[in-house]
Amino acid sequence: MIRPDLAPAFNGARVLITGGLGFIGSNLARELVESGAQVMLVDSLIDEYGGNLFNIAGIEDAVTVNISDVRDEHSLRYLVRDQDYLFNLAGQTSHIDSMVAPYNDLEINCRSQLSILEACRHQNPGIRIVFASTRQIYGRPRELPVTENHPIQPVDVNGINKTAGEWYHLLYAEVYGIRVTVLRLTNTYGPRMRVMDARQTFLGYWLRLIVSGERLDVYGDGLQRRDFNYVEDAVSAFLLAATRDEAAGQAYNLGDPNPISLADLAQLVVELNGSGEWQLVPFPSDRKAIDIGDYWADFSKIERELGWRPQVELRDGLEETLRYYREHGAHNYWDASG
Amino acid sequence: MIRPDLAPAFNGARVLITGGLGFIGSNLARELVESGAQVMLVDSLIDEYGGNLFNIAGIEDAVTVNISDVRDEHSLRYLVRDQDYLFNLAGQTSHIDSMVAPYNDLEINCRSQLSILEACRHQNPGIRIVFASTRQIYGRPRELPVTENHPIQPVDVNGINKTAGEWYHLLYAEVYGIRVTVLRLTNTYGPRMRVMDARQTFLGYWLRLIVSGERLDVYGDGLQRRDFNYVEDAVSAFLLAATRDEAAGQAYNLGDPNPISLADLAQLVVELNGSGEWQLVPFPSDRKAIDIGDYWADFSKIERELGWRPQVELRDGLEETLRYYREHGAHNYWDASG
Repeated sequence: MIRPDLAPAFNGARVLITGGLGFIGSNLARELVESGAQVMLVDSLIDEYGGNLFNIAGIEDAVTVNISDVRDEHSLRYLVRDQDYLFNLAGQTSHIDSMVAPYNDLEINCRSQLSILEACRHQNPGIRIVFASTRQIYGRPRELPVTENHPIQPVDVNGINKTAGEWYHLLYAEVYGIRVTVLRLTNTYGPRMRVMDARQTFLGYWLRLIVSGERLDVYGDGLQRRDFNYVEDAVSAFLLAATRDEAAGQAYNLGDPNPISLADLAQLVVELNGSGEWQLVPFPSDRKAIDIGDYWADFSKIERELGWRPQVELRDGLEETLRYYREHGAHNYWDASG
Repeated sequence: MIRPDLAPAFNGARVLITGGLGFIGSNLARELVESGAQVMLVDSLIDEYGGNLFNIAGIEDAVTVNISDVRDEHSLRYLVRDQDYLFNLAGQTSHIDSMVAPYNDLEINCRSQLSILEACRHQNPGIRIVFASTRQIYGRPRELPVTENHPIQPVDVNGINKTAGEWYHLLYAEVYGIRVTVLRLTNTYGPRMRVMDARQTFLGYWLRLIVSGERLDVYGDGLQRRDFNYVEDAVSAFLLAATRDEAAGQAYNLGDPNPISLADLAQLVVELNGSGEWQLVPFPSDRKAIDIGDYWADFSKIERELGWRPQVELRDGLEETLRYYREHGAHNYWDASG
């Protein structure tokens, strides 16, 4: 449910969401529709990515769906015109895929971001942009929790390209005065996430396995700690950032004050599911090479400057998410025909 | 003249230099030929970049010239085979051009670096690479002198793309074990630099103007301080880095212990030339937006670990460079037909 103080800003506003049929994009679209926004969703619906038409079940008639890829600079050049807001969420999210197919990751996370910004600069410089960046740009944390001033030192191709994509956004804010806010997301979870495999997040895949009665594998010793945001909290941050002038030109971490070890998380998932099991397994070598170990964010900057703080406890968010996938999973999320 | 302790490493070695007809590449080629290396130069000879056939005058018959662009992943895939060393120097260097034509900069400084590394990984993983990075990746210095631990925060598209290009190199070293060293160059000057305009370095353009009897323009108050390396010193660093096992996987700053203000530098150039004048002019707005202010490097890491230190005083290097352009400039460097 959108915060009541934010809803008026979006009433009647024209909003473009790239990656709009994906996990966070579609949850964002729901809030925006409820606020009375005119929402256009751009998505390529590539099987390996997060887009899924079922994600907009119930709001199909209230949004415009435009199937196109952010690599298509021609369509984007047209689509950004006359928009008040751009929530720029399209991305290739798989770290492993980025190592296997680095050009593909570069085209999406790097080149396309530049072309989206060029389109805005030339077609609609007054647009308000919020860009979905990622904790991945920090690489292996040197100190915890990780603040926005932590060195940027990504450990995989995806992290390098996401960094470039983020920096283009901040550069276009600085040099051309386009009002851009960058949110560096931590692990985000909730209804409508990709659960078919671990490409978007391992937690999604875990939920699918546990709901399907399969065992969870936890890599290594399971002691790596991470923080998790429920999607509703992430959506609030996007909406909030878009409405606040002082957020233009800024980058903010999202995060959660209660990091949890992956072993404890697996145990919690099993417990909330009411059945199932998990086990420790050795790290696959391709994952070990790019694993970042412990990570949790210091999100005091966005709390202090914009008043954002996660509201949903992990236990509550996981219960809600399990409920969603028990109801909708097998038909709509287990494979690419969903 | 190559350091006598380095020459044996390159005697009979097969060496590929991208950007090999350019400023640093051609000076490097001269040293390598003298050491008995089999040198192949790859260059696209694009008018706006640094390549110039006159740069290899006198060694034409001792090197192999292969005209191709690093964006051509097919030719590179072939050319990296059977090479012992790759000095990877090809790049788009103009900050202003990178803002006007950002995709072009991205293709060269970002995508091509990835394809060169993919070529090495698949065709010749035992190759030894030294990559020419730049101080530009640090952006506006937060503290001086700038060490390798200074935050990476580029202020233009060129800096963002060069950062990605550098990081791909370090990533391929880390994940695939390819022996790569990164050198973060400061302003480098000397014979064979591009002097037609300020695309490669403003100092080159100044030298052309002063030799041609034209006035130098110094932007702003002229108090910005910078450090300068003579090309012979930069070349030594490339050769040294390539021969030392402990340099694999490392990034090193080059620099000079005596930074100089741009006004003082202009005055010195006029003095060494024996005539001419310079003036302060307001910053053009496109340059001001991406100017980094003061910069000089802390190069103690490469001094401590590899024993490199610049040997040529600015005054001596400038005299040598002025002599070169007085002799060869008008015919070979003043315009693109050179």
